[in-house]
Amino acid sequence: MESEVYSKAKAAHEASLQLANAATTVKNTALSYIANELESQCQTIITANQIDIANAKDKGMSEAMLDRLALTKSRIIDIATGVRQVIDLPDPVGVELEAWTRPNGLRIQKVTVPLGVIAMIYESRPNVTVDAAVLCIKSGNACVLRGGSESIHSNIALTSVIKSGLQKAGLSPDLVQLLENTDRALVKELLTLRQYIDLAIPRGGAGLIQMVIQTATVPCIETGSGICHIYVDKDADLDMAVRIIENAKVSRPSTCNAMETLLVHQNIRQALLDKLVPVMQRDAVELRGDTEARMLYENIIHEAMPTDWETEYNALIMSIRTVSSVEEAIAHIRRYSTHHSETIVTENPKTAEQFLREVDSAAVYVNASTRFTDGFEFGFGAEIGISTQKLHVRGPMGLSALVSYKYIIHGQGQIR
Amino acid sequence: MESEVYSKAKAAHEASLQLANAATTVKNTALSYIANELESQCQTIITANQIDIANAKDKGMSEAMLDRLALTKSRIIDIATGVRQVIDLPDPVGVELEAWTRPNGLRIQKVTVPLGVIAMIYESRPNVTVDAAVLCIKSGNACVLRGGSESIHSNIALTSVIKSGLQKAGLSPDLVQLLENTDRALVKELLTLRQYIDLAIPRGGAGLIQMVIQTATVPCIETGSGICHIYVDKDADLDMAVRIIENAKVSRPSTCNAMETLLVHQNIRQALLDKLVPVMQRDAVELRGDTEARMLYENIIHEAMPTDWETEYNALIMSIRTVSSVEEAIAHIRRYSTHHSETIVTENPKTAEQFLREVDSAAVYVNASTRFTDGFEFGFGAEIGISTQKLHVRGPMGLSALVSYKYIIHGQGQIR
Repeated sequence: MESEVYSKAKAAHEASLQLANAATTVKNTALSYIANELESQCQTIITANQIDIANAKDKGMSEAMLDRLALTKSRIIDIATGVRQVIDLPDPVGVELEAWTRPNGLRIQKVTVPLGVIAMIYESRPNVTVDAAVLCIKSGNACVLRGGSESIHSNIALTSVIKSGLQKAGLSPDLVQLLENTDRALVKELLTLRQYIDLAIPRGGAGLIQMVIQTATVPCIETGSGICHIYVDKDADLDMAVRIIENAKVSRPSTCNAMETLLVHQNIRQALLDKLVPVMQRDAVELRGDTEARMLYENIIHEAMPTDWETEYNALIMSIRTVSSVEEAIAHIRRYSTHHSETIVTENPKTAEQFLREVDSAAVYVNASTRFTDGFEFGFGAEIGISTQKLHVRGPMGLSALVSYKYIIHGQGQIR
Repeated sequence: MESEVYSKAKAAHEASLQLANAATTVKNTALSYIANELESQCQTIITANQIDIANAKDKGMSEAMLDRLALTKSRIIDIATGVRQVIDLPDPVGVELEAWTRPNGLRIQKVTVPLGVIAMIYESRPNVTVDAAVLCIKSGNACVLRGGSESIHSNIALTSVIKSGLQKAGLSPDLVQLLENTDRALVKELLTLRQYIDLAIPRGGAGLIQMVIQTATVPCIETGSGICHIYVDKDADLDMAVRIIENAKVSRPSTCNAMETLLVHQNIRQALLDKLVPVMQRDAVELRGDTEARMLYENIIHEAMPTDWETEYNALIMSIRTVSSVEEAIAHIRRYSTHHSETIVTENPKTAEQFLREVDSAAVYVNASTRFTDGFEFGFGAEIGISTQKLHVRGPMGLSALVSYKYIIHGQGQIR
């Protein structure tokens, strides 16, 4: 007998041709129905969510995690609003990227096409179910969704709404599949179904992402882990540096684009720390520093261990290291960064250009917060994750990350 | 102690920063030295190659394989000419793909950058050693090369020439690494070194490619397996169809862009076969067909087994299947194709457009031979393989397949 994973992946693959060739208006009609159904079925969704919440409370889930899991009427309306925003985005499929004619008369066009079937593996937040399905539909891709077990009742209710929207638009409900059995072994099966799955995208903690990368034989995109650095150069505007550091560390420390490590040039170390430390204390940020930093604020800056440089805190903790040059800052970043986002604060354009050129991360900034690495902040109008690998797509992934291309060649009988 | 794989991959990674930031002129100077050294060290290379040839003969290698392995003076000159052609290609690094300014004043540029370190795993032909190294150098990437054991002496000699060229241009010889131990277990180690290897590209038979895909945890690109189809529609110019089929099957049957299966519309089956069969007989092509085709040429067309539809012959064998519509042809291709190249022969533009739209392969043709799927034929001036996957790059891979991009963001103190 076929497993749930196999039969759902196969059904998604078989339905995918219909969506790949669907007109933009058909896809947008489906999205419009989905948005409407989210609102009209609001109470059904909340009822399902309350089962998840009750189960999670029984298991002793933290308040912060419970909050991430909860769906209220206003959150469901926000999700529906997000769906309607995707309707307004341009269709990424069927775009002619290039076209040329060869001396032998062959006309070659490079045209965007959907990837096929996308597997999304994610953790507790149920809104990802809708976000992912909707971006896949708009980009012409079928999808197989595997959310966390703690949100399974919410996810089933949301998927039912999505399938209903697809059907009302004349599209197959098989285009969006949710794995209801959340056993980990089934994820492995999903990640090796090369005949049906064209891409896997994990979204969640480092453990989930590593599991996917180690297990998958289907192509996958590494997302989201962020050990982001801010280097304050000797030629920095120190007040600007403090504002950027505070924003990058404090505004939302649990996100992947929050900073973890401050690299400070030795010439301005004391001047910077004298401005920064009171701000960080006010914000209740724990500071861990090297010997040079601790000499200045012995009781406030704790000792940084070697592991601190390779830790994504996701919390109000910041490590501080002194460097003697931009080269030393770049070398530190090269060794410890997860290639997500790094900032230099400097008024020296030459130093800035060296940093921007030599730091090998998805987003490199001069004089701005790392928190801007985000699909909406970049103006993509959507985000399905942030890629920290270099293949296919890097940095914030909008709709264009979910398409491939093919070459269409018109001939008149040419042979080689 | 570090293994050969680990130490060479690490050395390539450490050297890669130098090449990533090298000016175009420096990279071209290195290529120019490499071309010159290939010619001046011609005799040394041939002597090394003769050891490989002698060993291969002892092992009973076929004449065809011995020919692929052999390096003669004229072949080495051809390789050097190929290197000089790469000098003339535009540098794929540092190209601004897009740039825009956000309402908050952030200036975002999307600029091409090298991938880092590329692992190439390939089989007997030693010229791949030079082709791969040179394309990596031009695109700013370090590389770790793992050729077949049968060409190891040739590969060592060629790598020595490449390293010498790099040094003369002031670049690190560590940028090009050859694994001298060709034990398969070491390939597995190479394919899981995520901290040092940014991309793996296998080039060779289906067995090698499957091994790489099943083993790799580093990102990889599936290349080269080609079960290519030609569909002759009821509205085809049959003389054109015969010319295209002969070219696609016979001109070089061992290549991945050669055709394997002919799909023929039932309305023109007899008329097409009456023209095609004598041509295929003259070319000594073995024909395997379905019942309908065999009824017409019982002793000439042998019975096609179900496995025939999923076999890449790489030889003068062609399978023939009758279909009753373009939809049936598309469904057959969707089931059996390796998503490489497919052709429709038709004079009906509407049928052509349906085929071009619905067939999900890297290259889809109307009225031209599948053999044109090739980096040089597409005008890319180089080719490092043909991708049959959809992520990152599809179809013939030129220099632009070997780069990623990063976002460079200029701010004036923006926070979020």
